[in-house]
Amino acid sequence: MAGSSFRFGQHVLQSSCVFFKSRLSIGFVNRKPVVPGHVLVSPLRVVERFGELSSEEVADLFMATQTISGVVEKHFQSTSLTIAIQDGPEAGQTVKHVHVHILPRKSGDFPQNDEVYEALDKHDKEVGEDGKWRTEEEMAAEASVLARYFNCQMLMEGPYRIIYNRSQCAILVVPILVSILHTSICINSDKGYK
Amino acid sequence: MAGSSFRFGQHVLQSSCVFFKSRLSIGFVNRKPVVPGHVLVSPLRVVERFGELSSEEVADLFMATQTISGVVEKHFQSTSLTIAIQDGPEAGQTVKHVHVHILPRKSGDFPQNDEVYEALDKHDKEVGEDGKWRTEEEMAAEASVLARYFNCQMLMEGPYRIIYNRSQCAILVVPILVSILHTSICINSDKGYK
Repeated sequence: MAGSSFRFGQHVLQSSCVFFKSRLSIGFVNRKPVVPGHVLVSPLRVVERFGELSSEEVADLFMATQTISGVVEKHFQSTSLTIAIQDGPEAGQTVKHVHVHILPRKSGDFPQNDEVYEALDKHDKEVGEDGKWRTEEEMAAEASVLARYFNCQMLMEGPYRIIYNRSQCAILVVPILVSILHTSICINSDKGYK
Repeated sequence: MAGSSFRFGQHVLQSSCVFFKSRLSIGFVNRKPVVPGHVLVSPLRVVERFGELSSEEVADLFMATQTISGVVEKHFQSTSLTIAIQDGPEAGQTVKHVHVHILPRKSGDFPQNDEVYEALDKHDKEVGEDGKWRTEEEMAAEASVLARYFNCQMLMEGPYRIIYNRSQCAILVVPILVSILHTSICINSDKGYK
């Protein structure tokens, strides 16, 4: 995804922050995560409200959410997940583009379990304790680590994305290589007969 | 849906509380809503974690969530929606069955916008101010009102539910009635020739 950028409501999202892409959705890291591994999933199309998404976009968005949530839960060694949409300004939405928050949760990550939502509501309104958002370099580094879990997923971008992991890629690629090798041997054999 | 009941984790859900049913999901009212119109959507299959759902269940669950959220937003005259999943005990999940919370939101419904989550985290752990949950009668009355929005939706239960409203039902039913009437006239006409 190098070189490209994505719209996220009023923002331009650098491709370096995007670690997942399906046909209709993207997964990307957060400039101010509430907990380690707090990531976002959005439809590619700039749509303000959840109700405006097509059925296909809804299906794709939440299959992406399911896939990504499994990865961040594993990678950040969490035991639960908070999954939330702030759909409209009265629900705390600030970026006018549907986005699903995925937050890997652990026992004791907040003094009171529900304080996660207080943090979630404030996270994109306040800069960090050091007076800054995370830098693009910091975000790109995290996205790069997460992207490895999906390294082959862009091989097929059907109506419903299919994830291929490395072993599955090998299953796809090895027969092709064997076939090329076989053809090459046949051609060379033919030459030998001339 | 009269007469039947549904499993909701460790609970049995009376069909009178269910106002929506697709092929793989149900929508039902809440025994202690955090805001008016706070409803739940679940897969029919008893599955504890979001990651255990099949792709088809994910698609169905969130298309149901989208349809229901549009209806509760309209019916309860809200302007935004909080949509959340507490996926696992460290995220506040108490009922071991995936469920999506839909909360219609309005300006000023909570002194601080994010207090909705505090209420959400406590809502199924505490009984009401009067020392009781809502009665089944109260819940059934609300479900009955909401069910009217989906009155014909069970006509077709394909892989992805299709909602038929009353006018669409008329389009389906009128030609059938005309056909029956026409057949009846023909039969009677035949009789007249004898």
